[in-house]
Amino acid sequence: MKTNATVSKQTLRRLPVYLHYLNFIKNDAANISATGIAEFFDINDVQVRKDLAVVSGSGRPKTGYVVAELIAQIEEFLGSRTETDAILVGAGNLGRALMSYNGFAEYGISISAAFDKSDGVCGTTVNGKPVLPYDGIEEYCAHNDIQMGIITVPVGEAQSVCDRLTGCGVRAVWNFAPTILRVAPGVLVENENLASSLAILSRHLREGESGGEKN
Amino acid sequence: MKTNATVSKQTLRRLPVYLHYLNFIKNDAANISATGIAEFFDINDVQVRKDLAVVSGSGRPKTGYVVAELIAQIEEFLGSRTETDAILVGAGNLGRALMSYNGFAEYGISISAAFDKSDGVCGTTVNGKPVLPYDGIEEYCAHNDIQMGIITVPVGEAQSVCDRLTGCGVRAVWNFAPTILRVAPGVLVENENLASSLAILSRHLREGESGGEKN
Repeated sequence: MKTNATVSKQTLRRLPVYLHYLNFIKNDAANISATGIAEFFDINDVQVRKDLAVVSGSGRPKTGYVVAELIAQIEEFLGSRTETDAILVGAGNLGRALMSYNGFAEYGISISAAFDKSDGVCGTTVNGKPVLPYDGIEEYCAHNDIQMGIITVPVGEAQSVCDRLTGCGVRAVWNFAPTILRVAPGVLVENENLASSLAILSRHLREGESGGEKN
Repeated sequence: MKTNATVSKQTLRRLPVYLHYLNFIKNDAANISATGIAEFFDINDVQVRKDLAVVSGSGRPKTGYVVAELIAQIEEFLGSRTETDAILVGAGNLGRALMSYNGFAEYGISISAAFDKSDGVCGTTVNGKPVLPYDGIEEYCAHNDIQMGIITVPVGEAQSVCDRLTGCGVRAVWNFAPTILRVAPGVLVENENLASSLAILSRHLREGESGGEKN
């Protein structure tokens, strides 16, 4: 496993998707070929082989990959032996939804605390994690060596929150606010563009009405 | 504007992202070139030109596109003159976050009701929208011609909820459960893969530690 090699963002984006598929078929299939995976997702099988080469040897001729082995290999690759603590800013419904979700541990990420500027939620806990006032962000980050921040505040506040987090040493930002964030080199922003999915679904319904459809 | 033409999923995915960028620069720039947009997102400018050709004429030599015009054209393309009502199943924190968000109207989508199997939340409203018991799904869909469903239930319930929705005539499914859903031809499932973003962020932090990094 090439733990120290650089891996493209697109490969990293696809590996969790393959993992969902492998978990989906594991009770019905002991083996799967790269071609089988490629056909399911309607992508090129050369691409699938390249992606899987990052975590596994190549599949065997005729039988392909052993599903259970491939699942374990992808999980090991995506998981981290050392867990990273993240903080979340903006404990509204979306923020609380993310705090309530325990599946992030698979990726070596744990939300350890949230921050909100509303007195109404500060002092409460969500899924055992405290919601704290904005004032405490700097001290918390310094004491806990926080490197990842999750931004679930409204658009107008997102940039100032982002500046504050990166000022505290955060180098990876997961941004749910539908806006562009400026960051210094070395900081990675991953934007969750819910709007892109909606555009596709909305268009599918309208194209269905007029007949045409294209993948 | 090619309202009846087929447009690729990838173009549909990028248009809302361009829109965020254009709104971000509109106070500082009257014009923008395809090359300028391409450089910001680190993608090919030929691709940007092709994407924008779906909603606009080509940019003018030297000056490019008028930012305000391009914003209006993308908004008109992504929006729908006829609003589509969607229902949401699973009114937990994530479901309620989506119900609370009013930005979906830009894409011609309105969540009109949610359904949940827990007595505790049924009968409540979120952002003025009712949370109703599972029993009522079929009747509600039939009476309101519902074509889009949003699934925010746990993994184990996602397929049965999906079957129930498509059985009611739903043709577009926005799936937040981290699993693969089987649907009949003609039904589009758009999976919101939060795990893919996490994989990228987590890897960025680990690559930073070992030195290497690749975009």
